[in-house]
Amino acid sequence: MSRTNDPNLKSWVEVPPGSDFPIQNLPFGIFKTPGLTPRLCTAIGDYVADLQVLAEHGFFDDLGIDPRVFARPFLNDFIALGKAKTGAVRSRLSEILDDNLEDWDASQLADYFLHRQSEVQMLLPVRVGDYTDFYSSREHATNVGTMFRSKENALMPNWLHLPVGYHGRASSIIVSGTPVRRPKGQQMPDGAEKPVFGPSRLLDFELEMAFVIGRETALGQSVDIADAEDYIFGLCLFNDWSARDIQKWEYVPLGPFLGKSFASTISPWIVTLDALEPFRTEGPKQDPNPLPYLQTKGPGSFDIQLEVEIRPEAGEGKVVCQSNFKHLYWSMAQQLAHHTVNGCNIRVGDMMASGTISGPTPDSYGSMLELSWRGTTPIAMPDGSERRFLLDGDTAILRGWCEKEGLRVGFGEASGKVLPAE
Amino acid sequence: MSRTNDPNLKSWVEVPPGSDFPIQNLPFGIFKTPGLTPRLCTAIGDYVADLQVLAEHGFFDDLGIDPRVFARPFLNDFIALGKAKTGAVRSRLSEILDDNLEDWDASQLADYFLHRQSEVQMLLPVRVGDYTDFYSSREHATNVGTMFRSKENALMPNWLHLPVGYHGRASSIIVSGTPVRRPKGQQMPDGAEKPVFGPSRLLDFELEMAFVIGRETALGQSVDIADAEDYIFGLCLFNDWSARDIQKWEYVPLGPFLGKSFASTISPWIVTLDALEPFRTEGPKQDPNPLPYLQTKGPGSFDIQLEVEIRPEAGEGKVVCQSNFKHLYWSMAQQLAHHTVNGCNIRVGDMMASGTISGPTPDSYGSMLELSWRGTTPIAMPDGSERRFLLDGDTAILRGWCEKEGLRVGFGEASGKVLPAE
Repeated sequence: MSRTNDPNLKSWVEVPPGSDFPIQNLPFGIFKTPGLTPRLCTAIGDYVADLQVLAEHGFFDDLGIDPRVFARPFLNDFIALGKAKTGAVRSRLSEILDDNLEDWDASQLADYFLHRQSEVQMLLPVRVGDYTDFYSSREHATNVGTMFRSKENALMPNWLHLPVGYHGRASSIIVSGTPVRRPKGQQMPDGAEKPVFGPSRLLDFELEMAFVIGRETALGQSVDIADAEDYIFGLCLFNDWSARDIQKWEYVPLGPFLGKSFASTISPWIVTLDALEPFRTEGPKQDPNPLPYLQTKGPGSFDIQLEVEIRPEAGEGKVVCQSNFKHLYWSMAQQLAHHTVNGCNIRVGDMMASGTISGPTPDSYGSMLELSWRGTTPIAMPDGSERRFLLDGDTAILRGWCEKEGLRVGFGEASGKVLPAE
Repeated sequence: MSRTNDPNLKSWVEVPPGSDFPIQNLPFGIFKTPGLTPRLCTAIGDYVADLQVLAEHGFFDDLGIDPRVFARPFLNDFIALGKAKTGAVRSRLSEILDDNLEDWDASQLADYFLHRQSEVQMLLPVRVGDYTDFYSSREHATNVGTMFRSKENALMPNWLHLPVGYHGRASSIIVSGTPVRRPKGQQMPDGAEKPVFGPSRLLDFELEMAFVIGRETALGQSVDIADAEDYIFGLCLFNDWSARDIQKWEYVPLGPFLGKSFASTISPWIVTLDALEPFRTEGPKQDPNPLPYLQTKGPGSFDIQLEVEIRPEAGEGKVVCQSNFKHLYWSMAQQLAHHTVNGCNIRVGDMMASGTISGPTPDSYGSMLELSWRGTTPIAMPDGSERRFLLDGDTAILRGWCEKEGLRVGFGEASGKVLPAE
């Protein structure tokens, strides 16, 4: 166990019970305030710590890092320094915030580099080059396959042999808190002879997580599965908003397009693989055994509890789904080894999402499509209303956290409010 | 007709007969030499003209453009200036190179800003944010549908109602001349019970063109079809390399992924819509009439002759396909209006490819899959060998040009040699 993971560490910054951001987390993000340009930060309790100011005060001087990297509007250049250096920064932050260490104690500078999270604006943390969406939950693929084909033919023949994925739209990835306009598009209503045009009526969330690429490859190079995690900087929450009616009409034969490209919401914090290490666990047993390039040794998943809350415009919210990252059949290492086995190059900041993370029970399904089973089993809301899909004014809030023996390491939220179509 | 299109214009730079680059073209690209950093250029005859040097000599001083934009390694910042300014630069280049104008005559500086194309290295012209691939040739979709389903069900129900498209991989878009490594991946051979892993045996080209986005939109905004061409800076050739065996096994239900993401080759020159204007023409008649957001007035296509040559490692080449951009059923304006109708934002440098451009006759099919009809009708090569798909050592060369009343405006080549799998 590295020092930063020690559950006995405490910060001189107050960390309220149940906080996602103890000193053992120290994720990375980008914030700004009305008076400050965008810059790097970490989270501690209810605060963000300004890395640019810490750099200006010399706290990272011995790490051999150009201090301008902390003043950038995206994490990309920082991530590109490599895990040795970004890990050293995180380790130094742990020292700076530790209430038992004096060497790097920065508590007397707190007023200069700490801001309440409620008083800053968190920005999109990475400039995403390419975004890939996998389809790696067996339960989700089975549910969708059962609905649209049949229980017997739910999984396509390739599904158990490779992590099915597709390219998504990078330009419309937005940070938590950004409203989402209900999309318009072509739909073919059941029984209609011609398609119609209008606002989507089947707007959905998809509970996903995404990992951020931390190391580039050259075109033609493949990432060996044994090395795959070296290329992964960290993870965030990912809501792959979906318009089911638009998607259904357009997606054969080339896959989802406008049914998804209108928005994807991520949490503002990238939690490092280092911070997740205490929560490493086995994924599902794989049968059949995959081809050698997809075979891994040791636990390749993480025990990350996930939930989705729907909060109506003027009503009480309800958690409609509780799932877990560990349900995913294909691991991140398998996804990345597969993605690059053909020589496709990856770049720092590329984002690879998991696909909807559904669990085995109906209350763990990661989309309204599954939770309401195509609208046939609506969800009762506290205000007496029902939800088959999302209504205008609803806010969908994804949350994720690891918890074990009193240690909680979380991701914060990926939240977005649905605005009516224009 | 604008002055730059005047077929009577002549340059003081020699333009050989049959050149793609008369003074009426003036496309934009990026070049470097061993002694010069990457920078903007245009093409004239067998030469490139260095825009950075012209800017340093004051030729663009009156246009209100930061001269540093000409010294960038990608066209993006130049394109983002907008068509008024990029058009003014192109117009000035026309004056600089015109042998009848004295005001802006730069012939005495020729040694400083002209380089033989054979002595420079052309680079990837744009930094591509997102890359979208459409599927807009009715002949291609019908051929593929006939092969994999049946003649009666060749076109999917949505095909005549919307320009089907999907997201592609931006990181692996490469410039003409870059070799392409034969990809490896999972395949399911006919009759096999389990997938196998190995080099693709069905490597193919796809003859496409792509347009480059010249103006960004905000998330939630749609581009009205009447304004769509204002958002298009220009076009290039696009080879959407495809591994048919990898593609066939992976693509259901989410579309092409590793079967295409290993490489896409573009020509180094972006030819502006202005230069193509004399060759504007009608596309195919559309029946049924599309929904209102896809309805256009006036001719929305261009008469661009296209061909593909396959050149074996040590043998004579053969033109295996002759097609035309005007065969495409869906216009660029329709593609862009559709792409943004859900509010998906676009950014300068985004690339939108047409899909394989097949014509009505067997010699106009834009891929080996169609030309050899799944390998059943091999193509005879001049050296006596046959081609069902591409062999190691083959170079696939795409060419495109417009020609009318003695005026030829061309795209150069998009060329790539197949290297054996590693």
